[in-house]
Amino acid sequence: MLELRLVQGSLLKKVLEAIRELVNDANFDCSATGFSLQAMDSSHVALVALLLRSEGFEHYRCDRNLSMGMNLNNMAKMLRCAGNDDIITIKADDGSDTVTFMFESPNQDKIADFEMKLMDIDSEHLGIPDAEYHAIVRMPSSEFARICKDLSSIGDTVVISVTKEGVKFSTAGDIGTANIVCRQNKTFDKPEEATIIEMQEPVSLTFALRYMNSFTKATPLSETVTISLSSELPVVVEYKIADMGYIRYYLAPKIEEDEEDMKP
Amino acid sequence: MLELRLVQGSLLKKVLEAIRELVNDANFDCSATGFSLQAMDSSHVALVALLLRSEGFEHYRCDRNLSMGMNLNNMAKMLRCAGNDDIITIKADDGSDTVTFMFESPNQDKIADFEMKLMDIDSEHLGIPDAEYHAIVRMPSSEFARICKDLSSIGDTVVISVTKEGVKFSTAGDIGTANIVCRQNKTFDKPEEATIIEMQEPVSLTFALRYMNSFTKATPLSETVTISLSSELPVVVEYKIADMGYIRYYLAPKIEEDEEDMKP
Amino acid sequence: MLELRLVQGSLLKKVLEAIRELVNDANFDCSATGFSLQAMDSSHVALVALLLRSEGFEHYRCDRNLSMGMNLNNMAKMLRCAGNDDIITIKADDGSDTVTFMFESPNQDKIADFEMKLMDIDSEHLGIPDAEYHAIVRMPSSEFARICKDLSSIGDTVVISVTKEGVKFSTAGDIGTANIVCRQNKTFDKPEEATIIEMQEPVSLTFALRYMNSFTKATPLSETVTISLSSELPVVVEYKIADMGYIRYYLAPKIEEDEEDMKP
Repeated sequence: MLELRLVQGSLLKKVLEAIRELVNDANFDCSATGFSLQAMDSSHVALVALLLRSEGFEHYRCDRNLSMGMNLNNMAKMLRCAGNDDIITIKADDGSDTVTFMFESPNQDKIADFEMKLMDIDSEHLGIPDAEYHAIVRMPSSEFARICKDLSSIGDTVVISVTKEGVKFSTAGDIGTANIVCRQNKTFDKPEEATIIEMQEPVSLTFALRYMNSFTKATPLSETVTISLSSELPVVVEYKIADMGYIRYYLAPKIEEDEEDMKP
Repeated sequence: MLELRLVQGSLLKKVLEAIRELVNDANFDCSATGFSLQAMDSSHVALVALLLRSEGFEHYRCDRNLSMGMNLNNMAKMLRCAGNDDIITIKADDGSDTVTFMFESPNQDKIADFEMKLMDIDSEHLGIPDAEYHAIVRMPSSEFARICKDLSSIGDTVVISVTKEGVKFSTAGDIGTANIVCRQNKTFDKPEEATIIEMQEPVSLTFALRYMNSFTKATPLSETVTISLSSELPVVVEYKIADMGYIRYYLAPKIEEDEEDMKP
Repeated sequence: MLELRLVQGSLLKKVLEAIRELVNDANFDCSATGFSLQAMDSSHVALVALLLRSEGFEHYRCDRNLSMGMNLNNMAKMLRCAGNDDIITIKADDGSDTVTFMFESPNQDKIADFEMKLMDIDSEHLGIPDAEYHAIVRMPSSEFARICKDLSSIGDTVVISVTKEGVKFSTAGDIGTANIVCRQNKTFDKPEEATIIEMQEPVSLTFALRYMNSFTKATPLSETVTISLSSELPVVVEYKIADMGYIRYYLAPKIEEDEEDMKP
């Protein structure tokens, strides 16, 4: 039997909105340690990994490991019926082919049960090794989202270049070119507004803006985003979920010859 | 001659928005007692009845009974041109085939006259007898609107079941099922947030959500809604209009065999 | 070399939004006196003239007169990437076929360069002689915008009639007629809310509402609009840009026989 009670139910609503543009169907994995998901996007280019640790739930009961296949759009339809202050409980009986989402209003006057059919989804779990990155940029998540959106109005790809001084986002398209530089800025009184760069060596990598924009759907989950870059590895775009875990997106850089397309 | 002056003009704008999704053309009936309307929706399933009593107008002159046929979308186009703080006067000369809506800004600096052609509309006025209902539910109108909207994302019909403890709204569709229970709750300091149930005997009736959602267009008119249910009668969904009257919607329940469709 | 630094960058964004519905491609003319534009709308019916005087810029360097042809939609795409508090600098090298828009965030942490290709655009500069007008109406720009929008839901043309008492905007269409009268009102404590009429003789002129609505895109630039009317001249609809200049729209009245169409 599974029973996970999350006082801050709006967090689960935000998690769904952060994933469902990339992934249609996915398995949620429940174990003693937490509620997690790993899935490739529908075009098999980007990977998303979610972890909500058991300690973050008010009540967490998971008698045995369980993998629940869900259609994320249907799940989002149901979660959208939860009020932003509602407590959400996820329930499933052993061997059942359904999952129940229970929403309780703060004053307990309104209680809703939404029952959804589960699906069988084939998926293999990729082991993601810890890695060393050439550069790690931490910046306000809203700033990163704005930059990805702005550059999309000019071009299709973004070159992210990191030096000690700052991080540069560049693009080019039919109507012209754009460069946006964010300087390192360790604002001490408002740490969530800081832009902090940890760099072993300069990097300059190219990515499809379409995926970057999908990643920024996680912006409501965290005030900061961490971008980890290395020439031989997929970029990791991570949004921490306070006290509970994270959502991480992985995307391989475009190879060199693609950058030819960038020249105006 | 007809001249009806309504200081709170935005009320008339809200009334129009509450009706025009259901009804295209309708007769407004003016008499010494008030300004009223009774009309079937265009598919002849639901009935809407409006009453604005003469006492609620700042000035009310109606020399003889008058029935004015109007296209509600055209009327709404004109009323949307009134500011929310404008005073609205409805004027018609005897025998005229037009009606004039006059909008005065609060400081009298801007005065607008909109003249609209009237239509001949056949309609029969149904006598609606007073009736005893098995159960009457009074609840916040925004809560009722939210429930109808939420359930529409899952199914097409809603089962409304009333017991002494509360009222349950249920639906089912391809992606699963949903039950929302609102408990009786006599909040005394904020009466408009209370959920109050008067019950002679338990009822459980099925209705098309499409119509319920149209009825909730009246939500801006009142903080509370009253739902009167009886197994042999159409449900009445009523929004009181402060100091002036009401808007009431009538809808027949779906018959038993339809409920088969509800089973997942 | 050209370098124009505008501290209030949002002003340039608003200017673009005020023009680009009417004009697709246009030459911006830079000289020692200022940054200006004159262009016919794409159907060659209305004329728009913009002036931003050099004194209004924090830094203004223009070594020699320069005419820069730009696609206004592409320019707007780039300017939309500037934050509302950003400082905008327009830069061009002599003989270059590109222009650069630089956006600096207020704290200088984020600096963006957008480079756009220039176009060759044939255009002739019309001399617009100073003229005497029969009537000049100054009124709140939001009020004028609201009236044009409201009348558009009824008819296609507006008759603007000025008398000593006020200005009347009238229209007619299939569903009826509308007249909106704004009375002269010299509110002294809030001059931007005043409606002031300077009249030599009464005028009554008819204009296409479609163009008037396009002109009102300039509403965010100024709290007041000035409408100058004369029977033999195009109307001038002017929005002053504080401390810097103006945007003016010119539109010829419709001739008498068109007014036949207005009769219901």
